[in-house]
Amino acid sequence: MSTSLPTDLEIARSATLRPLPEVAADLSVSSEHLEPYGRDVAKIDLAVLDGSAGPSSGKYVVVTAVTPTPLGEGKTTTAVGLAQALQRLGRRAVVALRQPSMGPTFGIKGGAAGGGYSQVVPMERLNLHLTGDFHAVTAAHNLLAAMVDNHLHHGNALGIDLRNITWRRVLDVNDRSLRNIVVGLGARQDGVTRETGFDITAASEVMVLLTLATSLRDLRERLGRIVIGYTTQGRSVTAEDLHAAGAMAALLADALKPNLLQTLEGGPAIIHCGPFGNIATGTSSVTADLIAVRGSEYAITEAGFGADMGAERFFDVKCRVSGLKPDVAVIVATVRALKTHSGRYAVTAGKPLPTGLFEERPEDVEAGLPNLRKHVEIVRRFGVQPVVAVNAFPQDHDSEHAVVRRFCNRLGVRSAVTRHVAEGGAGALELAEVVVEAAHEPSSFEFLYPLDLPLEQKIEAIATQVYGADGVDVSPAAARALEDYERLGYGGLPVVIAKTHLSISSDPTLRGAPRGWRLPVREVRAAVGAGYVYAICGDMRTMPGLSSSPNAERVDLDEDGSVTGLS
Amino acid sequence: MSTSLPTDLEIARSATLRPLPEVAADLSVSSEHLEPYGRDVAKIDLAVLDGSAGPSSGKYVVVTAVTPTPLGEGKTTTAVGLAQALQRLGRRAVVALRQPSMGPTFGIKGGAAGGGYSQVVPMERLNLHLTGDFHAVTAAHNLLAAMVDNHLHHGNALGIDLRNITWRRVLDVNDRSLRNIVVGLGARQDGVTRETGFDITAASEVMVLLTLATSLRDLRERLGRIVIGYTTQGRSVTAEDLHAAGAMAALLADALKPNLLQTLEGGPAIIHCGPFGNIATGTSSVTADLIAVRGSEYAITEAGFGADMGAERFFDVKCRVSGLKPDVAVIVATVRALKTHSGRYAVTAGKPLPTGLFEERPEDVEAGLPNLRKHVEIVRRFGVQPVVAVNAFPQDHDSEHAVVRRFCNRLGVRSAVTRHVAEGGAGALELAEVVVEAAHEPSSFEFLYPLDLPLEQKIEAIATQVYGADGVDVSPAAARALEDYERLGYGGLPVVIAKTHLSISSDPTLRGAPRGWRLPVREVRAAVGAGYVYAICGDMRTMPGLSSSPNAERVDLDEDGSVTGLS
Repeated sequence: MSTSLPTDLEIARSATLRPLPEVAADLSVSSEHLEPYGRDVAKIDLAVLDGSAGPSSGKYVVVTAVTPTPLGEGKTTTAVGLAQALQRLGRRAVVALRQPSMGPTFGIKGGAAGGGYSQVVPMERLNLHLTGDFHAVTAAHNLLAAMVDNHLHHGNALGIDLRNITWRRVLDVNDRSLRNIVVGLGARQDGVTRETGFDITAASEVMVLLTLATSLRDLRERLGRIVIGYTTQGRSVTAEDLHAAGAMAALLADALKPNLLQTLEGGPAIIHCGPFGNIATGTSSVTADLIAVRGSEYAITEAGFGADMGAERFFDVKCRVSGLKPDVAVIVATVRALKTHSGRYAVTAGKPLPTGLFEERPEDVEAGLPNLRKHVEIVRRFGVQPVVAVNAFPQDHDSEHAVVRRFCNRLGVRSAVTRHVAEGGAGALELAEVVVEAAHEPSSFEFLYPLDLPLEQKIEAIATQVYGADGVDVSPAAARALEDYERLGYGGLPVVIAKTHLSISSDPTLRGAPRGWRLPVREVRAAVGAGYVYAICGDMRTMPGLSSSPNAERVDLDEDGSVTGLS
Repeated sequence: MSTSLPTDLEIARSATLRPLPEVAADLSVSSEHLEPYGRDVAKIDLAVLDGSAGPSSGKYVVVTAVTPTPLGEGKTTTAVGLAQALQRLGRRAVVALRQPSMGPTFGIKGGAAGGGYSQVVPMERLNLHLTGDFHAVTAAHNLLAAMVDNHLHHGNALGIDLRNITWRRVLDVNDRSLRNIVVGLGARQDGVTRETGFDITAASEVMVLLTLATSLRDLRERLGRIVIGYTTQGRSVTAEDLHAAGAMAALLADALKPNLLQTLEGGPAIIHCGPFGNIATGTSSVTADLIAVRGSEYAITEAGFGADMGAERFFDVKCRVSGLKPDVAVIVATVRALKTHSGRYAVTAGKPLPTGLFEERPEDVEAGLPNLRKHVEIVRRFGVQPVVAVNAFPQDHDSEHAVVRRFCNRLGVRSAVTRHVAEGGAGALELAEVVVEAAHEPSSFEFLYPLDLPLEQKIEAIATQVYGADGVDVSPAAARALEDYERLGYGGLPVVIAKTHLSISSDPTLRGAPRGWRLPVREVRAAVGAGYVYAICGDMRTMPGLSSSPNAERVDLDEDGSVTGLS
């Protein structure tokens, strides 16, 4: 982040790693449950969860954020830094994060999981393949796609409607030219011609399904329930109908095991799954969190985007599946994000930041505070203790931090300024202390809605009670789909709202805490295998492209065979 | 193979595996050079090759075959069985094999690497992902494809001719509907519309390149030389021109390390790479063989299809790169294959075998012997000692084996009947003994052609001196391509002939040792990164399809979470 710091890759490479069995021991995972995958990476056998009956006593902390700028506000670095700081305080802490997608790694991001002195290592392994879980998702997803087209080719006995096949293909690469394609060209033996496309692997329903599965058996059952499309009579066709779910489960059996790495300061870091934050849950896996809570005093997990998006899904979808009750939600705020919520700055990805963001302007921070207030309210709505973490950047001014701290005091919310990127765990000690305090407050976690509420009312509950919309406008097509889903038996699923993450509203240009707007539901889709229905409220891109100068051009091997250019 | 045997998976699962460090020690690989990847699988660090200057003393044995039926004649089982038998004789032996492709695993084959009591274990890991090398090839290949289309999208500064882009995409799945596709449909931001397609990952040039690379540096350089197409002026455009080769190398760095598993009898088995046998080399990797020869007394490696195809490429392409000199070529023959070379039987994949193949008909075996004679001649042409291994099936008759043994005696070729599928290494002891004898004969290995011969003359040399064709008929298009390649500087590359493996000729219906035919070269292509030019003489399918009842439908997880249905 700071120009005076070495690059993330330089910092990562200079770290001395602890032997992984020692790291695992800190997580109460013995060597017999550890399967090494190359140097300094291991999978954790799910057998570690057997016998741990009843809820564990580990505190469960989710890291969320204010509405971010397109650059992100540092949830991952904060999660890592917080775990590192808790360890410095003598607490057994673990951080559970998503695995980065390789598409963006070679696109603009150039590698992820933390940054500066709050990273997960080994960084090259983390960013390139790791243990192959994403590849397993790709393989399982595309095997099902091949079996769909193979079924059409061999006579379409199930009567699948060619114009109503929802199952596409996936690859973990930013490749815009695969978004819309025609397959099955050529001769008769080359399949049935139809239009379809590829999404990035992170957008695969199989990825979310893997994220939410609680056991191998649950994984197998969810795979069977995947709906690939509909018959001409409007009946759903599943992966089970195509006899594909067993082979998919075989492909995914190892991928269900979370991966153990370590923080720069040698604490356990569980890296597992990486579903999209827009159309999916944007969280790491249920199995990872179950292992984290079971084996530590503080399990720090992350939920994508702001609290309106990530935290709401974390509470209503992921926690419903896992049965875990979160104790604390850390809301990451930055001076630059709050300044943009004043409405006085335009931040665009790939363009230089407005210089005013770096000038001492506490009044602009003040003007952006309604956004922070809204996220605090969202967290409180779920009965979870909020803590505000001001992620300090070198360009910040103390007066700007003070504005945020005073506001939090007025709201009765614990807060801390954290400098974990520049200083590692030592920079997050105050945050760790207030998280410990908050975790010991009585908590009264509750879901926003019961599952037996009709789908449309669930959407409305999120829109009005979480986002602060006046109501929901459902398009006729979406209304028909909701009716169909109730009829097909999907009415009991939770919902995910796919909207922009750049505003609490569905309009990415609205800053702060927008009022007087309605949520337009353009389209509704069902991820029946993963276990939710999602409402599309805006343009959701599920296959990124590369820029005119993608980061892939800068990645290479040096003389020693080490990877360069990852960040 | 025999109906009285348990299934391959049952046999594999009942095996007691040795600790992998012990297995590695048998290969002179110490634990510091072993990187575990899950249970009972490890990668071997290429540093193990450092310091082993000069040619090693291990004997180098390649397993090839007569012209096979569509079912295959058991080269892999023979290679495994031979290694097991050599160990029983107190010799330090290792077997180096290709990794099975997941496409066919879920298609008709249902898993591979040996069979019966001559297998490599753990079988499930071997057949599903292994250590992710195929996925790394897929990722590197498709990253380059994305960068090609991204270059077109952002203005095509290099002037790539849209109608002359040879780089396609790959997936490790049998998916016929991806053979011919149109990409870049949709809006302007969704890329440039053009026709292309997917091949199976085993057919990727990156796969052969990985197979032939001798070091990380060599891998990086070969990747840079990959030609993705041509400009409108006829200049070649490389992966280096697109600045993609560095990122590809980063994706492939771990995949270059061979994988260590073990045979059912606990000996080392190196599994690495799996290039197609038709358009590529059909061998396991150079790095695998270098490690095998360095660390053992007997390194057994395999070359796809019959000696006309696999062994010729093994000698002229792979050994030229590795610098290794083969001592012995084991030619696997079966009663059923020799009977079909009588021309009196029609064997079709997926259909029941003609019952006559199981009746005692030594005269039909006799009538098929010219095919065996031809393969013996091919091996001798390269100055390598042939050994004929009669892979016995339960339905064979002693009189039929005797015909083959007598013929070998007349030719002065060592031979043995081997029953390694039913009996493991104990069934291949006689074969092991004659291989040891043959390996101690003086050998005088030589290439068929020098590299400075023009490409067309290299093709002619293989056609006439190896296949026994009267000559070569080059199509006008192929002739133009050959001229272009000489002009572009590819004239010094070796050649691969992509023809049917079901006949020594280019006509799959011709049995035995066909005479009086000419090789028709329809098309010529350059795999400049991998390092060869290939001549296409027939229909070469590079993306298989699934049948109406693919094996994927039978794969599942059992109650314990173990994979079922792999074979």
